[in-house]
Amino acid sequence: MTSFFDGIPTISYDPQADHDFAYRSYNPDEMLMGKTMAEHLRFAVAYWHSFAWEGGDPFGGQTFLRPWFDTTMDAARAKADTAFDMFKILGQPYFCFHDADVRPEGDTFAESTARLHEITDYFGEKMEQTGTKLLWGTANLFSNRRYMSGAATNPDPDIFAYAAATVKECIDVTHKLGGENYVLWGGREGYETLLNTDLKREREQAGRFLQMSVEYARKIGFKGAILIEPKPQEPTKHQYDYDVATVYGFLKDYGLENEVKVNIEQGHAILAGHSFEHELAMASALGIFGSIDMNRNDYQSGWDTDQFPNSVPEVALAYYEVLKAGGFTTGGTNFDAKLRRQSLDAEDLILAHVGAMDVCAKGLKAAAAMLEDGKLEAARDARYAGWGSERGQGLLSSDLETINAQVKADALNPQPASGRQEALENLVNRYL
Amino acid sequence: MTSFFDGIPTISYDPQADHDFAYRSYNPDEMLMGKTMAEHLRFAVAYWHSFAWEGGDPFGGQTFLRPWFDTTMDAARAKADTAFDMFKILGQPYFCFHDADVRPEGDTFAESTARLHEITDYFGEKMEQTGTKLLWGTANLFSNRRYMSGAATNPDPDIFAYAAATVKECIDVTHKLGGENYVLWGGREGYETLLNTDLKREREQAGRFLQMSVEYARKIGFKGAILIEPKPQEPTKHQYDYDVATVYGFLKDYGLENEVKVNIEQGHAILAGHSFEHELAMASALGIFGSIDMNRNDYQSGWDTDQFPNSVPEVALAYYEVLKAGGFTTGGTNFDAKLRRQSLDAEDLILAHVGAMDVCAKGLKAAAAMLEDGKLEAARDARYAGWGSERGQGLLSSDLETINAQVKADALNPQPASGRQEALENLVNRYL
Amino acid sequence: MTSFFDGIPTISYDPQADHDFAYRSYNPDEMLMGKTMAEHLRFAVAYWHSFAWEGGDPFGGQTFLRPWFDTTMDAARAKADTAFDMFKILGQPYFCFHDADVRPEGDTFAESTARLHEITDYFGEKMEQTGTKLLWGTANLFSNRRYMSGAATNPDPDIFAYAAATVKECIDVTHKLGGENYVLWGGREGYETLLNTDLKREREQAGRFLQMSVEYARKIGFKGAILIEPKPQEPTKHQYDYDVATVYGFLKDYGLENEVKVNIEQGHAILAGHSFEHELAMASALGIFGSIDMNRNDYQSGWDTDQFPNSVPEVALAYYEVLKAGGFTTGGTNFDAKLRRQSLDAEDLILAHVGAMDVCAKGLKAAAAMLEDGKLEAARDARYAGWGSERGQGLLSSDLETINAQVKADALNPQPASGRQEALENLVNRYL
Amino acid sequence: MTSFFDGIPTISYDPQADHDFAYRSYNPDEMLMGKTMAEHLRFAVAYWHSFAWEGGDPFGGQTFLRPWFDTTMDAARAKADTAFDMFKILGQPYFCFHDADVRPEGDTFAESTARLHEITDYFGEKMEQTGTKLLWGTANLFSNRRYMSGAATNPDPDIFAYAAATVKECIDVTHKLGGENYVLWGGREGYETLLNTDLKREREQAGRFLQMSVEYARKIGFKGAILIEPKPQEPTKHQYDYDVATVYGFLKDYGLENEVKVNIEQGHAILAGHSFEHELAMASALGIFGSIDMNRNDYQSGWDTDQFPNSVPEVALAYYEVLKAGGFTTGGTNFDAKLRRQSLDAEDLILAHVGAMDVCAKGLKAAAAMLEDGKLEAARDARYAGWGSERGQGLLSSDLETINAQVKADALNPQPASGRQEALENLVNRYL
Repeated sequence: MTSFFDGIPTISYDPQADHDFAYRSYNPDEMLMGKTMAEHLRFAVAYWHSFAWEGGDPFGGQTFLRPWFDTTMDAARAKADTAFDMFKILGQPYFCFHDADVRPEGDTFAESTARLHEITDYFGEKMEQTGTKLLWGTANLFSNRRYMSGAATNPDPDIFAYAAATVKECIDVTHKLGGENYVLWGGREGYETLLNTDLKREREQAGRFLQMSVEYARKIGFKGAILIEPKPQEPTKHQYDYDVATVYGFLKDYGLENEVKVNIEQGHAILAGHSFEHELAMASALGIFGSIDMNRNDYQSGWDTDQFPNSVPEVALAYYEVLKAGGFTTGGTNFDAKLRRQSLDAEDLILAHVGAMDVCAKGLKAAAAMLEDGKLEAARDARYAGWGSERGQGLLSSDLETINAQVKADALNPQPASGRQEALENLVNRYL
Repeated sequence: MTSFFDGIPTISYDPQADHDFAYRSYNPDEMLMGKTMAEHLRFAVAYWHSFAWEGGDPFGGQTFLRPWFDTTMDAARAKADTAFDMFKILGQPYFCFHDADVRPEGDTFAESTARLHEITDYFGEKMEQTGTKLLWGTANLFSNRRYMSGAATNPDPDIFAYAAATVKECIDVTHKLGGENYVLWGGREGYETLLNTDLKREREQAGRFLQMSVEYARKIGFKGAILIEPKPQEPTKHQYDYDVATVYGFLKDYGLENEVKVNIEQGHAILAGHSFEHELAMASALGIFGSIDMNRNDYQSGWDTDQFPNSVPEVALAYYEVLKAGGFTTGGTNFDAKLRRQSLDAEDLILAHVGAMDVCAKGLKAAAAMLEDGKLEAARDARYAGWGSERGQGLLSSDLETINAQVKADALNPQPASGRQEALENLVNRYL
Repeated sequence: MTSFFDGIPTISYDPQADHDFAYRSYNPDEMLMGKTMAEHLRFAVAYWHSFAWEGGDPFGGQTFLRPWFDTTMDAARAKADTAFDMFKILGQPYFCFHDADVRPEGDTFAESTARLHEITDYFGEKMEQTGTKLLWGTANLFSNRRYMSGAATNPDPDIFAYAAATVKECIDVTHKLGGENYVLWGGREGYETLLNTDLKREREQAGRFLQMSVEYARKIGFKGAILIEPKPQEPTKHQYDYDVATVYGFLKDYGLENEVKVNIEQGHAILAGHSFEHELAMASALGIFGSIDMNRNDYQSGWDTDQFPNSVPEVALAYYEVLKAGGFTTGGTNFDAKLRRQSLDAEDLILAHVGAMDVCAKGLKAAAAMLEDGKLEAARDARYAGWGSERGQGLLSSDLETINAQVKADALNPQPASGRQEALENLVNRYL
Repeated sequence: MTSFFDGIPTISYDPQADHDFAYRSYNPDEMLMGKTMAEHLRFAVAYWHSFAWEGGDPFGGQTFLRPWFDTTMDAARAKADTAFDMFKILGQPYFCFHDADVRPEGDTFAESTARLHEITDYFGEKMEQTGTKLLWGTANLFSNRRYMSGAATNPDPDIFAYAAATVKECIDVTHKLGGENYVLWGGREGYETLLNTDLKREREQAGRFLQMSVEYARKIGFKGAILIEPKPQEPTKHQYDYDVATVYGFLKDYGLENEVKVNIEQGHAILAGHSFEHELAMASALGIFGSIDMNRNDYQSGWDTDQFPNSVPEVALAYYEVLKAGGFTTGGTNFDAKLRRQSLDAEDLILAHVGAMDVCAKGLKAAAAMLEDGKLEAARDARYAGWGSERGQGLLSSDLETINAQVKADALNPQPASGRQEALENLVNRYL
């Protein structure tokens, strides 16, 4: 072990612990609905926020003083060592990374690539030693100034090419490490002003870029899911992958609705004006549910706050939708969450994850109890029961004229029935 | 003429008028880009806000005391008389209505229907006399308590049936009056809480409902456009027709992307987190641009304020997108705008429209000048010029491996170029 | 009993109940920190939402069909009978009302006043019989069209006079019924557009109006608190009583900061961009904390949704601030909450309150445990411990020059310490 | 001249210019209402955004590659040279700076201070040579990690001391350079979470800090205004100087309402839920109007976008309030605006300012015309005319009982009058 986490014990399940360094709810081997908690939740740590982020914000610079903050390959290895130390302390099964998190940018594409392969080989060794697995890999196509006007959607085809070449390498290393998914977040795939933007052309570039990525991944035998991560804006004024429903239309246009799924983030859902459970339910209804980023946004801060989850009621509603959708297959629960920039200490990094995992565990248990109990689903089914009647069954295959004639013939005058929202909210609260 | 507008003159173009009752910019016969202003703008008055709305808000009741506010057919005719008086005063070519605006609800579906036909026959006579035309008709499937949980998406199939029967009648009267479009705004097609909602089922009901509506309209020979009007929320927590991109995915799913277009409202765009010009550009890129509701929302009031437009710069950017999309075909500029509830007087109703039409006229002129001048489009084209190069042209038909190899071979290191946003904003301001 | 609640039992504490009609957490006589739960929470039902609101919203009319919806005094008495039936079923100790909720508006001020006195005499009898008390009374100075441009801040002095005369009567009846507070919510005390508004003058009118109200209340011996209820906007574009801090500046200006306190609503706090606990902490810091309206706003709906509370974590943080401020004195927990308009049934009205009271009880218990345990306060105190040092103590009475010299002399280079936000969030979650 | 702006001409007024590098509306010597445009507008360039900002955002790093980006004093002088070159090109009379913008941070407080004095001496020479003046100076108490938890409101008194010592130096150099104002923006004076915050204590620290700053400034003979710049949040979750009304209450509490004024930024007003003109009108009504930061926020981006102004209608309404308040005394029009990070070129920096100054000039001219014409003020006065009547005049010195008796005696039944909002909006549009 490196010395960064000195004094911090390995975290285990101990609901009666009299200290902070224990899981009080996350009991990895506890069975729920036929699977262990660990199998349900499939937790992943995000490499970037935990190990690469320096604590800056638009009004101030670095607050974290990590020993591995340097642009050498030695520092990259020291960072990896610390990361795998943390994985051991937490015992979460997965992690996720971008190329830019794990290796210093080289002077040339070739050098950056060589470094990426070198460090991911190092990851491979550590993964084998520790059993930690890769939930997903991804390419950072937004931080470097070359991407300031987009990657796939850049007005300059050379930048499109540079991005495409980069994705090829990132799919390669994800595949090499047995990654279970490959994610694309189009942080700069949008615009700052329509005045200088050809929206139609850029959307076409993005569509073709995604097709190429899918084609390549399949060609090399990558069996994991390809995931798009919707977000409405920030850093751009408008991001093309606005929300789940927008992504769906885009996938339909490029024939990818059966090839690509979505990685849904609570914070991004909130910024798009949706609840997290809405985006999950929508993705499930559209057949494109993939994975989640379980980091919350402050409802009242209009930027991406990427906070660790801390509301059991909200998390429970999210896992309820996940369980209804059949649970995760390749997906999992990634914490794309960053410490507050005032949380300077090594133990802050550990405790943030411990608290988040406990909140998720409590939420999952409530969701499972609610689903197994069946009262909520029974109430929902009862509300739509009329559609199972003879009249209801024929209606959708009828036509306006026939229906119109029938309404007149029957002098139909349907009366509304209570939606019972408060009673259902009370019911949900009983499981929390 | 009824006495409601007594003392208010017919409005005509008089840029030097020393009083309020003149168009200072809207000169219907003035030619721009080969069409008259009137042909470009195709103004329509919304019957509901101008003649049926009583001035209430969630914290207070009726403020307007109109002589036609009664639930008799005589009052309905008096309302129509006043409406056509106003159309004469304003000289705008079109109007729009819902069934519920124009006739009192009957005790039965049959009675409501009979009244609808009676009053629309009366409309027909007045339209013939005055030359005012119908831009679009629509059904109010949201105000009556029977629709509190949705119309097409209601959990009760009888309410679906009642709504379908109603749409049949509304398409009939729209067709009878030569309406150039038929609009569907799904004000209650959404949910208040996911807890009692089967989102997937409701979406399917909505899809089939829309198919039926298109099938019927085509069957009876209606040649106008069928338009969906997106809105993200309000009155619902979430409305299924959230925004243009969402509607597009929905249309694709039900095979309607070539049959149905969108009627885009500035206020609804704002509430969805988009600029109006974004929604217009997106609809144009997706091939579903239809018509507009030119009423603004206060950017800082989180509900639908439906105000008359008053910002020339904003309106200019909107018409710029309309002109780039080829201008209106069946669509037009509807003012789905209501007076502030403190604007009690008959002259407020006239002046609100006069000001709005002038703002639109100024915006249109600026947009036309900007487009004809070509500087903005030239700057945009220059930004994407690389895609016209040999390298650019082949890129979209290439693949990741080939591109990757080329990037390495060329040691490609593309540098970003200025997006020139401020310079372009300055340029736009020169036309305003 | 009237028949409206037929079949609904009296609600009592039964944590193991197998049905909906029980309190699972609200145990009125349970002791916490030296007081009973009932004494801590001081629950009140809002007469307007529960008995006067018809279920309308900006896009649809009445959904509730209550037998007492009529404009006669008989109907007003029937409404009162039902209200007191509900108070008996719920067992909450308090209620609140506006004049407009309880009596039909008369043709004249005198008639309206006579009716108000008549119905409140009737209330008095029922209060004596049942033991239900009045938490606060208030005047509705926003619904009638005469108030469309404000009451105290109206451009017309006659409307100011009408409002002042009305407040006099409302204070009278509040005093007569032993009301423990008198509330002013300035729903129309703001503006729609600055173009027609003299903001300075209107603010002065509001200041004088409030002084007069306080003077009169004190003159007649009213011992209760006078409370202002802040809200940022809606129905107005801007309301003068924007938030707690704004109200404080206003009170200071008119010498009322020791006479008037605030009634803080979660929903209004949210709309002003604040958390509920922020507004509570701010009011406490400023010495003007009075009472609360415990109804939540949907974070993503930009209008006042007035929903019953359902999030224990949020409610716990609110009561934590209340307990830290010493708990309620004259104030209490009013549910200024309305049923969703789809919640048509009598039992919805009961269950909404039952669920809300249980959520509050759970939140209160968590807050009390957290405060008694002291870990959170200890952590907070530790963070500021330096201010107790010798250097810290002298600093605030020093001056810039002296401090500057000392910083130089000491070569002071202070280092930041972790804010431990995630650890504290984890800590809070242990009590929930 | 340095070479940075090579090829860019000095900007002068030329309304018919056929190129970008001219003022089309800003004619410094043109007279309006008895003053020149330059005297009215008092333009200032912000040193930080234009010369110190590197183009980063939360998702990407530096995009600007400026030759002076280094942490040496030579680079600081090169930066100053370029800045004064730009001032010469633009011809605006003022600039503004923070200590951190102009000198590299030293290893010690003493070193930082020495550098500050050295570079501001250099400024002094250049100011004398060029005639450019200092509108205001300020201290950056938010970027360095020591301030991550606040400056005046820090839990650590040593950091309070460090901040106080810094302000002393910044007031000194502002005074030395003849600065006309001294500004405090409390970017970190707020909190991230209430859980670790003693709001009352922090507010008191802030109050005393401000008193000390005023006392020191007056002691050394600084005659300029002391200004607070309100902002609701970002980077903090809540900033204590939320908006103008909040600052007013704070000033009243610390006896500073006659000593301290506000510097109001359009973008901050927007983020607080207010229009810019609201904040200006409020500050004027409260007697604390000082100066403006004329940079807009995107209404739909929930973070501080600091864009150059480009909407003449909005700017006109702002200057209308400024003119009504008597115009600037020590204040001016600062562009606290940054280039979009894609606007890489030297000419972008010039053109952004040129466009902004032209927009302001057009807005000012419209505002002056509107005010001189008097129609808007006449309409406003007419609306309140009743308060000039005998009844109106006595009302504010009356009491509730007397008024109540009079309302009854007169059987007063006041009727509302139209607020004429649309007519007034039309009127305003005639001046634009």
